Amino acid sequence: MKQLKDYVRNIPDFPKKGIQFKDITTVLQDPAGLKLAVTSLQKELVDLDFDLVVAPESRGFIFGVPIAFNTNTGFVPVRKVGKLPYETIQETYDLEYGSATIEIHKDAIQKGQRVVIVDDLLATGGTMQAIINLVEKLGGEVVKICFLIELQDLKGRELLKNYDISSSIVY
Amino acid sequence: MKQLKDYVRNIPDFPKKGIQFKDITTVLQDPAGLKLAVTSLQKELVDLDFDLVVAPESRGFIFGVPIAFNTNTGFVPVRKVGKLPYETIQETYDLEYGSATIEIHKDAIQKGQRVVIVDDLLATGGTMQAIINLVEKLGGEVVKICFLIELQDLKGRELLKNYDISSSIVY
Repeated sequence: MKQLKDYVRNIPDFPKKGIQFKDITTVLQDPAGLKLAVTSLQKELVDLDFDLVVAPESRGFIFGVPIAFNTNTGFVPVRKVGKLPYETIQETYDLEYGSATIEIHKDAIQKGQRVVIVDDLLATGGTMQAIINLVEKLGGEVVKICFLIELQDLKGRELLKNYDISSSIVY
Repeated sequence: MKQLKDYVRNIPDFPKKGIQFKDITTVLQDPAGLKLAVTSLQKELVDLDFDLVVAPESRGFIFGVPIAFNTNTGFVPVRKVGKLPYETIQETYDLEYGSATIEIHKDAIQKGQRVVIVDDLLATGGTMQAIINLVEKLGGEVVKICFLIELQDLKGRELLKNYDISSSIVY
């Protein structure tokens, strides 16, 4: 039987030479692949008590929303700066070249709410640390972080060592 | 009982003066709102035979993926130029100022596949026309287009008059 990992397509030299990009569109476009991906993320949440799923634009939305829907919780988007229409708080973090800023609505999380964060990929963990900071600034408690794919060599797990992390596929 | 429309937040003067922006984050962050939104889109698809859900980055992802998951179909993302890692075809369309280019993977749709397109908002319909062009260039048949919100005054429905369109909320 086809495993989740078998649906991922490797793209050499994207977005630049030397990178082996893990393409998840081949997971999503096959009904069986999509089922496997979402259920694999979700099985980490069985028996976990939480209120909200938070996920970043735009690939985090792909997995965050079906998980929120299936677990009867709310979904809160983290977006690139300037996209959210209401009052926000921001976090800026370093990229390989330059920096990026992301935002969350100020009223998206109530103090004490239990939050699961979902994203497609754990690389260095820099983006996830910024998302955690946003959630905690609003008084949310990060009870679990779920990734579809983890690139082990980039040691994101070390950066995020104070959090409960799961990944469905490890390279 | 609270209706779907009651969960939408109106933001005056965003992104610029005179625009009444319809903020859907207040729909998503409430478990009951998220349930209502997805089920309201999905009830248009009962008894419809289709293979794939196509949706554009990034708010289209929010509704497209749970619908694909719930209906046991595949999900195909349409993204801004440069984001998809494999071979793509492109469409460029006009915006109020300048233009935008979107892409789809060349192998995302097989000739003759029946496609439902999902997005959050129908305004002028320009983006949706570009998405339709991408789907049809790959040989897909657009059997239904579902929007959460339709802004009637902008006459997107006229532009898209050859297609079967539904919207859950009309302003």
